[in-house]
Amino acid sequence: MPSLATKTIDINCDLGESFGAWHMGDDAALLAVVSSANIACGFHAGDPDIMRRTVALAVQHGVAIGAHVSLPDLQGFGRREMAVTPAEAYAMTLYQIGALHAFAHAAGTRLHHVKPHGALYNMAARDARLAQSIAEAVRDFDASLWLFGLAGSELVDAGRNAGLQVASEAFADRGYRADGSLQPRKEPGALITESDEAIAQAMAMAREGRVRAVDGNIVELQADTLCVHGDGAHAVAFARNLHAALEAAGITIAAPGANA
Amino acid sequence: MPSLATKTIDINCDLGESFGAWHMGDDAALLAVVSSANIACGFHAGDPDIMRRTVALAVQHGVAIGAHVSLPDLQGFGRREMAVTPAEAYAMTLYQIGALHAFAHAAGTRLHHVKPHGALYNMAARDARLAQSIAEAVRDFDASLWLFGLAGSELVDAGRNAGLQVASEAFADRGYRADGSLQPRKEPGALITESDEAIAQAMAMAREGRVRAVDGNIVELQADTLCVHGDGAHAVAFARNLHAALEAAGITIAAPGANA
Amino acid sequence: MPSLATKTIDINCDLGESFGAWHMGDDAALLAVVSSANIACGFHAGDPDIMRRTVALAVQHGVAIGAHVSLPDLQGFGRREMAVTPAEAYAMTLYQIGALHAFAHAAGTRLHHVKPHGALYNMAARDARLAQSIAEAVRDFDASLWLFGLAGSELVDAGRNAGLQVASEAFADRGYRADGSLQPRKEPGALITESDEAIAQAMAMAREGRVRAVDGNIVELQADTLCVHGDGAHAVAFARNLHAALEAAGITIAAPGANA
Amino acid sequence: MPSLATKTIDINCDLGESFGAWHMGDDAALLAVVSSANIACGFHAGDPDIMRRTVALAVQHGVAIGAHVSLPDLQGFGRREMAVTPAEAYAMTLYQIGALHAFAHAAGTRLHHVKPHGALYNMAARDARLAQSIAEAVRDFDASLWLFGLAGSELVDAGRNAGLQVASEAFADRGYRADGSLQPRKEPGALITESDEAIAQAMAMAREGRVRAVDGNIVELQADTLCVHGDGAHAVAFARNLHAALEAAGITIAAPGANA
Repeated sequence: MPSLATKTIDINCDLGESFGAWHMGDDAALLAVVSSANIACGFHAGDPDIMRRTVALAVQHGVAIGAHVSLPDLQGFGRREMAVTPAEAYAMTLYQIGALHAFAHAAGTRLHHVKPHGALYNMAARDARLAQSIAEAVRDFDASLWLFGLAGSELVDAGRNAGLQVASEAFADRGYRADGSLQPRKEPGALITESDEAIAQAMAMAREGRVRAVDGNIVELQADTLCVHGDGAHAVAFARNLHAALEAAGITIAAPGANA
Repeated sequence: MPSLATKTIDINCDLGESFGAWHMGDDAALLAVVSSANIACGFHAGDPDIMRRTVALAVQHGVAIGAHVSLPDLQGFGRREMAVTPAEAYAMTLYQIGALHAFAHAAGTRLHHVKPHGALYNMAARDARLAQSIAEAVRDFDASLWLFGLAGSELVDAGRNAGLQVASEAFADRGYRADGSLQPRKEPGALITESDEAIAQAMAMAREGRVRAVDGNIVELQADTLCVHGDGAHAVAFARNLHAALEAAGITIAAPGANA
Repeated sequence: MPSLATKTIDINCDLGESFGAWHMGDDAALLAVVSSANIACGFHAGDPDIMRRTVALAVQHGVAIGAHVSLPDLQGFGRREMAVTPAEAYAMTLYQIGALHAFAHAAGTRLHHVKPHGALYNMAARDARLAQSIAEAVRDFDASLWLFGLAGSELVDAGRNAGLQVASEAFADRGYRADGSLQPRKEPGALITESDEAIAQAMAMAREGRVRAVDGNIVELQADTLCVHGDGAHAVAFARNLHAALEAAGITIAAPGANA
Repeated sequence: MPSLATKTIDINCDLGESFGAWHMGDDAALLAVVSSANIACGFHAGDPDIMRRTVALAVQHGVAIGAHVSLPDLQGFGRREMAVTPAEAYAMTLYQIGALHAFAHAAGTRLHHVKPHGALYNMAARDARLAQSIAEAVRDFDASLWLFGLAGSELVDAGRNAGLQVASEAFADRGYRADGSLQPRKEPGALITESDEAIAQAMAMAREGRVRAVDGNIVELQADTLCVHGDGAHAVAFARNLHAALEAAGITIAAPGANA
């Protein structure tokens, strides 16, 4: 039975990650399940045509549209850290937000949020100066945009300092350390491969704001938005199961700031 | 002596054409002379950092900012025609306008116009369907933007059909044919290399809306904006001389739609 | 029963067309069926890692390795014609051959052929000057390489004129016109979608050097190598069926110049 | 007066660093002064046309040709460190060597050496695993190629371990630390801006194999090749002065392994 004070959580997913002739992800199926979409802006994936089509699809499904801004690295899919300066991060963030904004605007809607992708996300989680430059780019474009960042990260702090609304992101399928940071991918327990376990983790995050760390400790964790992955064989099935489990628990699924 | 009804003309120039470590053009000097700037958007030149700096420089000089949208061809500097579909042209135009808009908006100003660059400009001058897709991208982003196109071209028609304000562009230093089209670069008389001759041609365009074609005929030509080139040894000197000659003739130099 | 004078034909396929995180084609399955592989060189698909892996796979299967050289257009997958100069075509061909050569050489093997891809293939089929520049790049790298080109095309002529061994390519699943050229994709009969019909066409090409044109005429056609496509749901099944049909007819399947 | 045992040193310079319409460096002037050229291979600078022209120019001047292999980062000119894997470094090195080899081979000459550029150079200087992968790529392409690396670096060791001939590189215009490493660019004394001082440092390196570190200590330093920079207002003048000073001291200027 839902609590009297209804809980709300967002489910976000990375979308529009095809490029040219190359296809990636089942965007239409995922858009039926998520409440917010992080759309690639051409730097790690996506091209103008794909951005246009992905925005149109998100509009059809009533899903909030975010710019998934990245380092400029198509071959590496934005997953390779690069030593960019804060000024470069500022400019590339602004560029990509603007590009996606154009498609949203032409489609009669507007951007809802910005989420750094891949290596830029990880760098901005721990590098306060870089995080600041990204947050300032978001603010300078539109101070009403939400900034999505890893819960407890420098990026979340930088967003607040820049006067932005921030959504703390949590992962159903990633292991956490006792300090609330993600278990590095090379360490044991980094990935939760059992669907039931991942859903249980997500439920604890959504209902209690807690997660059991890989060392067994219970950690407080702000979870405004849950990330589900778009690739992998079971991505869509998992997202559907997560959606159903949250709804069954009376939790409203909605993008941050949306009137549910 | 100036006519009682003061004439106005725009001088536009392609700017922000550096890329990464490579420098091109004397943007600061040119911005002191022109009334509108076509700023590269990353597809043929320009990168996010350079776009940010070029927009800041244009703001300092009070010059109208336009998106210089291009085919995606850095190596070819956007000068090689590519068989893009109208849908691709639409999307790439929207993308680039949005990217430059972000820098203009963050700098506290707004875009004034859009001008296709190089091969896309030439293709849009003669291909009505391509021209339409570009005009629609401009309109779908912001119907108050000006569209710059070759005088008498399909692009100018497409802009009008899309409900845009259009500026017909004329070239001081290019030879014209009797039908008002540009003399192809491989033909005799395609380029006017004498500065005095080019300025005389520009003056006839600005004052009388006429040009003497390479075959000696006088051709009517709408000239709302004169293009000056940013590269070449004498680019800045020529632009200054043109500016001075127009002012001396009592012609107001201002971006289309500007209150002079 | 095979004829006394055994016929030989090559089956070639475009491979290594993944890029970064994006996957395309079932290379391993196709390599079990074809006798020569056209490997993407990074300009329309492929990246250094994928090139390395694809070469290794081709070596495992004993398949002849060719450089699938392309216009520089990742987003368009090399399928958009671009107005490149002969000098540019020469240099981009040489560059890509060299890059693939490095992987072949490091893997202890050598290149067998060069085939232009997509738009460059089509342009080189009809533009003698462009074809010449490609043929000269191949010759200047290694005059013992085979050049693959559309049967009856300018590229085949240019290869011969440059002193190269040429393989005339025919398509099982494309309609032909009475002059031996391909029926344009927008015209009726351009694509043969029935597998049986495509195999019948291939058999006629391989056995008799003939094809029935879309207007019903029988056309003489040199067919040294048959192209099978790597993408599409039935690509592998079709390639296997073609392979089996050719073998059943006693036709040897081998790369041009190979000792069967 | 030259010593009886004549000393030999190489002067190398980064060349072919233009890209498309963008020009960088006075390659012809520098080629008249240096004994080996590191030619950009398209990843940080250079394109196929420029590589072809630069190779031709190097051949004209009888300068040894090396592949200047880089991280894939045109916008950052290969100067931004990227988290590439050893396998990626191996493949990108092989790719670029092959590409340049094609132009050298077509021009009737052959590659002499390989030198990583910018961020890849710095990363390979301190990361043994990355250095190994680069050295192995060089060896797998041609075990007779020289590998240029920072004197005392992991790259030099990796080259030796891979059985390559290595040239230890020293910088006339960079400050050194007491351990023989370069003074980081942000520290005092990192750059030697006085031409006379830089030439004095080069002379000490060439004649005595020593350099005075920023802390005043004298450090032993293997200096097989001196790097002169191609950009900057005084690049050519400095290279000429260095060349003249070395010759005046009876030191032979020649590429490693060359018969002077």
